Amino acid sequence: MASPADKSSDGGEKYTKICPGGGLILAWQLKGKKVLLVGGGMVAAGRLINVKDADAHLTVLCPRSGLCSEMKYRIDVEKSVDVYLDKSYDSPSDIEGYDMVLTAIDDSETSRTICHIARNLKIPVNVADVPPECDFYFGSLIRRGPLQVMVSTGGKGPRIAASTRAVIERALPENIGQAIENVGMLRAMLRQKVPEQKQGPKRMRWMINVCDKWSTDELAELTNGEMQTILEGWDEGKAYTPRQVRGWRWVIVPRLGDIRKALFGTCPVVGYISPWLAGFGGIVIGTASTLAIVSMRARR
Amino acid sequence: MASPADKSSDGGEKYTKICPGGGLILAWQLKGKKVLLVGGGMVAAGRLINVKDADAHLTVLCPRSGLCSEMKYRIDVEKSVDVYLDKSYDSPSDIEGYDMVLTAIDDSETSRTICHIARNLKIPVNVADVPPECDFYFGSLIRRGPLQVMVSTGGKGPRIAASTRAVIERALPENIGQAIENVGMLRAMLRQKVPEQKQGPKRMRWMINVCDKWSTDELAELTNGEMQTILEGWDEGKAYTPRQVRGWRWVIVPRLGDIRKALFGTCPVVGYISPWLAGFGGIVIGTASTLAIVSMRARR
Repeated sequence: MASPADKSSDGGEKYTKICPGGGLILAWQLKGKKVLLVGGGMVAAGRLINVKDADAHLTVLCPRSGLCSEMKYRIDVEKSVDVYLDKSYDSPSDIEGYDMVLTAIDDSETSRTICHIARNLKIPVNVADVPPECDFYFGSLIRRGPLQVMVSTGGKGPRIAASTRAVIERALPENIGQAIENVGMLRAMLRQKVPEQKQGPKRMRWMINVCDKWSTDELAELTNGEMQTILEGWDEGKAYTPRQVRGWRWVIVPRLGDIRKALFGTCPVVGYISPWLAGFGGIVIGTASTLAIVSMRARR
Repeated sequence: MASPADKSSDGGEKYTKICPGGGLILAWQLKGKKVLLVGGGMVAAGRLINVKDADAHLTVLCPRSGLCSEMKYRIDVEKSVDVYLDKSYDSPSDIEGYDMVLTAIDDSETSRTICHIARNLKIPVNVADVPPECDFYFGSLIRRGPLQVMVSTGGKGPRIAASTRAVIERALPENIGQAIENVGMLRAMLRQKVPEQKQGPKRMRWMINVCDKWSTDELAELTNGEMQTILEGWDEGKAYTPRQVRGWRWVIVPRLGDIRKALFGTCPVVGYISPWLAGFGGIVIGTASTLAIVSMRARR
């Protein structure tokens, strides 16, 4: 087991150790690209979400009788399928002209045929449930606005991938999606204000400085007006802090939130209770009950 | 902000809402594939790790004068580069015959040329730092043995991607890599024992049952002999529990660990203290101190 943090010490050098056996995890760009999805069952419905989340132009090839209710909904009600072909695959010309081909059908003979045609045309192809036929695999995905987290176990175990995914979902701050969205907006506004390409590294440094001074919560709550104020800092070469932008009230209110978080830690049964609060409560209960017993005995 | 858990209620149907603007996150299969990496700086050195982690056959194209010390180490000492070409890009024939092309050079003119040649040859291409020229992006990656977790913010903010990555790294169980490795081994042994393709769904169900009965810690500690014992359960149609495989001692020891975990929750200052323990401690302190004061006063 090696993480990218492990360092190789061969030859006295200190570099990340190469850890073979993985896939190359990528964010494939599908905006404006044509994707062919062959099939209409539950697996196809999952693939549809994957590719439409990535803004693909999607063609679904499947006879109407083979559509599951979700696929019918996507095609007829939501209209998220750009082209629907109400037929089965029957000729190599069905595959031509696409930038990516995904098959999710039970007929493994046809799957293999489609796969070979696509490969000859140099079109990236994924055949559901037939790993050796795939140019790429899908993994378990978490989506929070612009944030995408992909969990891949290299096919070693879908169940343990799912439980790892659950661990990660619980760990992510609730408002992380909005925070990233706002950082992206601020970045776009900065690029508009300072468009010169040679300013790129300086822009990057300034954005990093800003992000370091604002917490996830604070970033998630940024308003357009506050972004404008932060941008004014660029001219003075400064990365404004939340206090400078929002004044003291905004610093104290989030700090109260921090205190609340510090007080209410996690507790498996009760939900959220901090050890500080619990300890203090225990002292109060212990003191009060002892006093009560002692005074009752004293009265007798 | 929408997560895959959000449901669309259009038309009264309950399906995952499509959330455009992302990339299609994939695990690209590079085993035995030929990758050309143009460049020899720090960015190229990062790409090298990415593609060698995925078992690619790697060619590096860069004059020796342009190699950073890490690249020199990879080429000369570690010998992880399969083909090293000590020259700059000078003709379209340099690009032919590869399955993927990555450029990481400062010369954006040459980058663009290489990109267009690759695209004409239908070779997937990534140009470092020039997003519009890329078929795919790299993200921030966490590796724990067979586990790969990729964090992508769609280019909205590298800094916040890095901090999100740090949150995820902290949340992952320490031995998750070994646990997944062992599940993969058990799965391979099962496939060897029951190779028939039609048994696929039954194999999958049995593996899920086993994974549900064993914790990450327990899976990470599996020995080869224990895997054999678990496999014996297949014949009886049973998914053995840790107690059945390891006996009571092995159940009690991990349970003590669970009790320890339940007692010692998180606390920002002290480290790990559970609210239960703190509350109990508070009662003891409160009772004892009150009794002490009362008895001291009574003695006077």
